[in-house]
Amino acid sequence: MKVVKFGGSSLANAAQVSKVVSIIKSDQARRFVIVSAPGKRFDGDIKVTDLLIQYANATLKQQPTETITGQIIARYDEIATAFNLPASVIEGIKQTILSLPDQEYEDETYLMAAFKAHGEKMNAVLFAQVLQASGVRAKYLDPHDAGLVVTDSPNDAEIEPSSYQRIYAWADSSVVRVIPGFFGYNTQEQICTFSRGGSDITGAIIARGVHASRYENFTDVDAIYAANPQVVSHPIAIHNMTFREMRELAYAGFSVFHDEALIPAIQGDIQVVVKNTNHPSQRGTSIMSHKRVNPAYPVSGIASSPGFCGIYIRKYMLDKKSVSQKILKVLAEHDLSYEHMPSGIDDLTVIMRQDQLNADIEETLIRELVIALRPDEIHITHDYALLMVVGEGMANRTGIMSKATDALARQNVKLVMVNQGASEISMMFGIKQAHADVAVRALYDTFFPDL
Amino acid sequence: MKVVKFGGSSLANAAQVSKVVSIIKSDQARRFVIVSAPGKRFDGDIKVTDLLIQYANATLKQQPTETITGQIIARYDEIATAFNLPASVIEGIKQTILSLPDQEYEDETYLMAAFKAHGEKMNAVLFAQVLQASGVRAKYLDPHDAGLVVTDSPNDAEIEPSSYQRIYAWADSSVVRVIPGFFGYNTQEQICTFSRGGSDITGAIIARGVHASRYENFTDVDAIYAANPQVVSHPIAIHNMTFREMRELAYAGFSVFHDEALIPAIQGDIQVVVKNTNHPSQRGTSIMSHKRVNPAYPVSGIASSPGFCGIYIRKYMLDKKSVSQKILKVLAEHDLSYEHMPSGIDDLTVIMRQDQLNADIEETLIRELVIALRPDEIHITHDYALLMVVGEGMANRTGIMSKATDALARQNVKLVMVNQGASEISMMFGIKQAHADVAVRALYDTFFPDL
Repeated sequence: MKVVKFGGSSLANAAQVSKVVSIIKSDQARRFVIVSAPGKRFDGDIKVTDLLIQYANATLKQQPTETITGQIIARYDEIATAFNLPASVIEGIKQTILSLPDQEYEDETYLMAAFKAHGEKMNAVLFAQVLQASGVRAKYLDPHDAGLVVTDSPNDAEIEPSSYQRIYAWADSSVVRVIPGFFGYNTQEQICTFSRGGSDITGAIIARGVHASRYENFTDVDAIYAANPQVVSHPIAIHNMTFREMRELAYAGFSVFHDEALIPAIQGDIQVVVKNTNHPSQRGTSIMSHKRVNPAYPVSGIASSPGFCGIYIRKYMLDKKSVSQKILKVLAEHDLSYEHMPSGIDDLTVIMRQDQLNADIEETLIRELVIALRPDEIHITHDYALLMVVGEGMANRTGIMSKATDALARQNVKLVMVNQGASEISMMFGIKQAHADVAVRALYDTFFPDL
Repeated sequence: MKVVKFGGSSLANAAQVSKVVSIIKSDQARRFVIVSAPGKRFDGDIKVTDLLIQYANATLKQQPTETITGQIIARYDEIATAFNLPASVIEGIKQTILSLPDQEYEDETYLMAAFKAHGEKMNAVLFAQVLQASGVRAKYLDPHDAGLVVTDSPNDAEIEPSSYQRIYAWADSSVVRVIPGFFGYNTQEQICTFSRGGSDITGAIIARGVHASRYENFTDVDAIYAANPQVVSHPIAIHNMTFREMRELAYAGFSVFHDEALIPAIQGDIQVVVKNTNHPSQRGTSIMSHKRVNPAYPVSGIASSPGFCGIYIRKYMLDKKSVSQKILKVLAEHDLSYEHMPSGIDDLTVIMRQDQLNADIEETLIRELVIALRPDEIHITHDYALLMVVGEGMANRTGIMSKATDALARQNVKLVMVNQGASEISMMFGIKQAHADVAVRALYDTFFPDL
């Protein structure tokens, strides 16, 4: 049995929805369908989720909402009309959307969560009808009824593990169940959403819950590529990868599949397949736990992610344990997280995401570190990129680091940090952001030489 | 004005002591002489400090001590006789040594400290007489009278910063002052020693205290070499290096100059010169704070140090801040220190010195880390060596990492860790201990190609 998830672009208009119907009809094992909210139909279009955020904000500010609600309802109406659905379907959706401001919400954050969630919710209601009209026995299944209970964090919820047992009760469903992605309910039965793009997470949760053999994630790319196609022209597709490879690549910016969605898949050991709604016969990318035997290339993927900074601290005879503890304490007081902390003999660097900082926080942070550590030197450097080279085939092979650093040196890419040693399947380099694209291309050409 | 320190081998017998007298007479700026205890005269000989430790242990166990005290006194007598010193000198030393068990000690650790310190103390008393007999106006200066006050840690003391002011009062001394190395007195006037080899530390403290222009450290090697001469045959001498280069190399096993002795030198910005008592006209190695301009080689030295282990921890979606805090807490509870903690996306490795561990501690540590972290995977790997490539010339140059990793790959040295990013003047590699010598030779041949 398979769980299938369709992204926003796969459900953006009637033509796309037709493709999705075909995909479901072509394989009877596809029993659970998770849908996103309708996405962009063309460049410059607005996603329904973004319209709903506008709607929520206008409601909170008591501004007129007719134009926005009109746009939202039109998106569903376009599809309902194309599939000749009874007028009652779109009427129900319309009333639900229009009555959103009349519901009770504990505060603005719950209101925002509920408004946003209705993009997926209405799309699932509609798509269940579309499937019915297309001859598929299908029913809408609300996350509430599915038993999907989440933590009480309105716009950044996490699954409660007890949910899996309840979801399993639906495993033998005799009809196709259409479930909206992106949200669940807390124990007070209030809607809470996952982080943005969270339909992937719902799909993974349902797949784990019903013990699916496979979780198919349909989107608008043929596969996950070994490098960003906007940086490297026509990179090779990765047809097989492991969960941990995906995790490492996702960290450095591979955003095809939501990072957090990997966790339920890993926990349930569910094979994830990323496929293209527009080319469903393409192999796509399969992600699973087994180590690949004899991968064709030692490296699977190369990624870079901008937006890091490093706080360099030097202090003679530093006691690393006590210095680290003091640094962690200062970071914790400001609710700042760090990514890496490479250490030398008398110095260490705290690598952080710089979007956590601004000039004020930076000044405060440095001042408090000076007080806590009395360092001989401290300074912050901005605009680093982290460059990741990832591959199961790297484990236990010598020479990969040498190849990578040689390729970078030939392009005059200066290494401000090299971090290898925790994971055996990746190497991490800190470089200047401005060098990131050159670096990715140099590494791609090195590790995929004949392509 | 110069402070001069002579190591144990420079004062092991009358022939060596004669060389030291010549060195002092050859430069009137040498006003403060710090002496170690007599060292080995030949392979298999016993250092006086080790005899004193035997003496202390025998005293504590109430065993006979005549043979040991006889050996100790004979070492000083040999020198006193060669220099025709009056009988009263050796008689005074003899009485002091024999009466050591009759003094009062707070506990066994203070007894041990006091016994050990007398190797240096008697040698300084003797050497002041030797200088007098050789026509040099010289006087013994006890650390107590010099104002050298240390923390109350009998066998691992640290200097109290207030000492420097008191020591400065001696700066204008009209005679050469001979000071025993290795120990000071706590505020209760009890003898406490520095860590073993601590005469270097006394020398640096005196040099800082009297504002010396130079601290000459005489030992038995012509210079500090770019690699261990037992691993690389005839390595190049490093004639100029910076304090921070020395610190990094000392960390990885360059043991010519005591690591802790660098701190007072750095604080006082005192040039340190390592020279050979047997070839005093050789340039030796000068260590100072200035960055060298245009060093001949990008790399100054290559070192490796065995005896490290790594605890690998993998946990999906680990929150680094909280995981690190938990690890540091567990380490602190067992008074264990760590050296480095390279981190990947879902994993990190704690690199530690393995002499802190045994099977029991290891088991406890792993068990407590499992409880604290609930990791997906945890295991410990032993017998790593840390390999350091150090050089001021590395800063801001690309390609050094590439050269190094290429050299290691050609010798099939697998890199279990690469750590660069804290210090700009060093790269650190974790490798298997068994590969250490091959790795050092490969790097030496790469960075010093024409030698």
